[in-house]
Amino acid sequence: MKPLVETSSIRWLSQKYYEQNGDHIEVLETPPSALHFSRLVHISRPVVIKGFQVPASNLWSDEYLIERMGTREISIAVTPNGLADAVTRGPDNRLYFAEPLVEQMTMEKFLSRLSPGSVVNDSEIHYLQSQNGNLYASGYFEGDLQPPSEFDPLRPDVPSDIPWCSEAFDRTPDAVNLWIGDSRSITSIHSDPYENIYTVVRGAKHFTLFPPTDGWSMDEHIYPHATYKRSAVTSALMLEPSSPTTEVRWSSISDPHIPGVLPPDVHPVYITLGPGDTLYLPAGWWHHVQQSEITIALNWWYDIEMQGMSWVLLSFLRGIGDVPPGNPESATATEDGKEDVKSLTRT
Amino acid sequence: MKPLVETSSIRWLSQKYYEQNGDHIEVLETPPSALHFSRLVHISRPVVIKGFQVPASNLWSDEYLIERMGTREISIAVTPNGLADAVTRGPDNRLYFAEPLVEQMTMEKFLSRLSPGSVVNDSEIHYLQSQNGNLYASGYFEGDLQPPSEFDPLRPDVPSDIPWCSEAFDRTPDAVNLWIGDSRSITSIHSDPYENIYTVVRGAKHFTLFPPTDGWSMDEHIYPHATYKRSAVTSALMLEPSSPTTEVRWSSISDPHIPGVLPPDVHPVYITLGPGDTLYLPAGWWHHVQQSEITIALNWWYDIEMQGMSWVLLSFLRGIGDVPPGNPESATATEDGKEDVKSLTRT
Repeated sequence: MKPLVETSSIRWLSQKYYEQNGDHIEVLETPPSALHFSRLVHISRPVVIKGFQVPASNLWSDEYLIERMGTREISIAVTPNGLADAVTRGPDNRLYFAEPLVEQMTMEKFLSRLSPGSVVNDSEIHYLQSQNGNLYASGYFEGDLQPPSEFDPLRPDVPSDIPWCSEAFDRTPDAVNLWIGDSRSITSIHSDPYENIYTVVRGAKHFTLFPPTDGWSMDEHIYPHATYKRSAVTSALMLEPSSPTTEVRWSSISDPHIPGVLPPDVHPVYITLGPGDTLYLPAGWWHHVQQSEITIALNWWYDIEMQGMSWVLLSFLRGIGDVPPGNPESATATEDGKEDVKSLTRT
Repeated sequence: MKPLVETSSIRWLSQKYYEQNGDHIEVLETPPSALHFSRLVHISRPVVIKGFQVPASNLWSDEYLIERMGTREISIAVTPNGLADAVTRGPDNRLYFAEPLVEQMTMEKFLSRLSPGSVVNDSEIHYLQSQNGNLYASGYFEGDLQPPSEFDPLRPDVPSDIPWCSEAFDRTPDAVNLWIGDSRSITSIHSDPYENIYTVVRGAKHFTLFPPTDGWSMDEHIYPHATYKRSAVTSALMLEPSSPTTEVRWSSISDPHIPGVLPPDVHPVYITLGPGDTLYLPAGWWHHVQQSEITIALNWWYDIEMQGMSWVLLSFLRGIGDVPPGNPESATATEDGKEDVKSLTRT
């Protein structure tokens, strides 16, 4: 099928965008006013913001979190490789978009599973990444009764919205999330149709960013969906394809840092956030995220402006080229099949 | 030469834009705050704003203008057809992008040449449209010494900038202009790389607007440049091709109201501004402008935001398709040549 939008057009736009903007990222020493932030949203480039303080930043030691959360159970993503929501090779040698097993445990048990260093040989890796508005979901702002947050005791430490953002966007957040993980958990490259404010409470987050115009280089494929389950026999994690079959469109670049994985005319932007640092990540920007130690972060997602060009342009940039299957047509992968996914060296 | 951007891609984007936005135009009953206006700039759709008051609105009768301006001479565009800066057929039957003769005269003499009705058989049509920052040019804001405005006596009646705009754009205007004309003067379809605030003091302006994504339907051609001069012999206006030859890229649609001139999937937006009405016309929007009586208007041009996607996207939308010559290759036009410019029925 002929693609709706010609890839050559997008590459031209991608090049023009880079020529005009380079890879400059603005750093603000203090949070902006709503008006200043509104101007930055119009520019829609990432901005690092210093000095945005949340009470959590001064409070959230392990001891505090364990004490406040007590015996409550929270939802934790468990995988064998730290890749929740990522393309992963299954036991049948086919590639899947794999979702984690979600297990309930106390904060104390969860934190005991994290590693401050990078070399640990656990067979299971834990990541708090429920990203469903685990602190505040949209219903909270609409006054709806809803299932209480798993993190209700921590809510006093996190503002439900950020005034200079809510005023600039003229809306309340769609979701506010808590993220806790260690260096073994990696977020694979993707883009979200949300305006994102991301702040680090403890640890360090390493972002690799690409503008929406670079989407053509993300090498998206169609993968069958699967979820990690516990085998009844061995209790080990095993990847179980979804039934009925579900397909997910996802980048086949597992790690943009691998030399040669990206076309030479694509220009990633690298940003590291430490404690107290905040990133405005505009809607549609592609991002790969790693952590270098035990890292606690918060994010506020705001709906993108649907009027005007923003949403339309993201659709346009996604409407490009062919999105081929991630696996060869035959039921199991061959050497040829592996050729198609040579960038998936991490899995 | 193969165009840099495929027209099919732009038509897809154009259609998506219309599906998302329709032809809705917001009307504000009072001027927005700077923050509100910044959000509207991000959306980049035209907005009609009521209640923006300038002193000129209450002051500018003909008598007042004549009294204040006295014997000063001002620059007035003179054409035989009311088409200053438009595609016009020359005496050699070729099509030119024609600029007006600019003559100096007093306000009193200029106003005596305007007609309150629409049926007048003057051989020359006058329009105050110098659009070079005739009230305030960028140098004014930079504190530079510069040639004084021709309209210096009227400056107290017109603010040099609009606070809610200057704060939202984070800059002062690039140019502030006074426009005075009657129903015989028409502004041909074009787009400007400026954010535009346009307010009517007296009379009525009729805008026909198209989003930047509709640029593919504007049927741009390359025309040789010419300027009206006075013949030394008869004193009549005659069109004189520029030497050395200069070429101008311009829409060949002289009047978008003519049935069949536009593709069926293009959706013009019609807006009429009366006294006290203001239009935010975002950068890159195509516009055709008419007046239905003697009309006095003011506009403030602000530079477009160069960071991010706005400027890049306008370049992208202009980079499409072929822009053929507006005249056949032979030196004088033939019936075939006229076929190429069938929409130029007004000239």
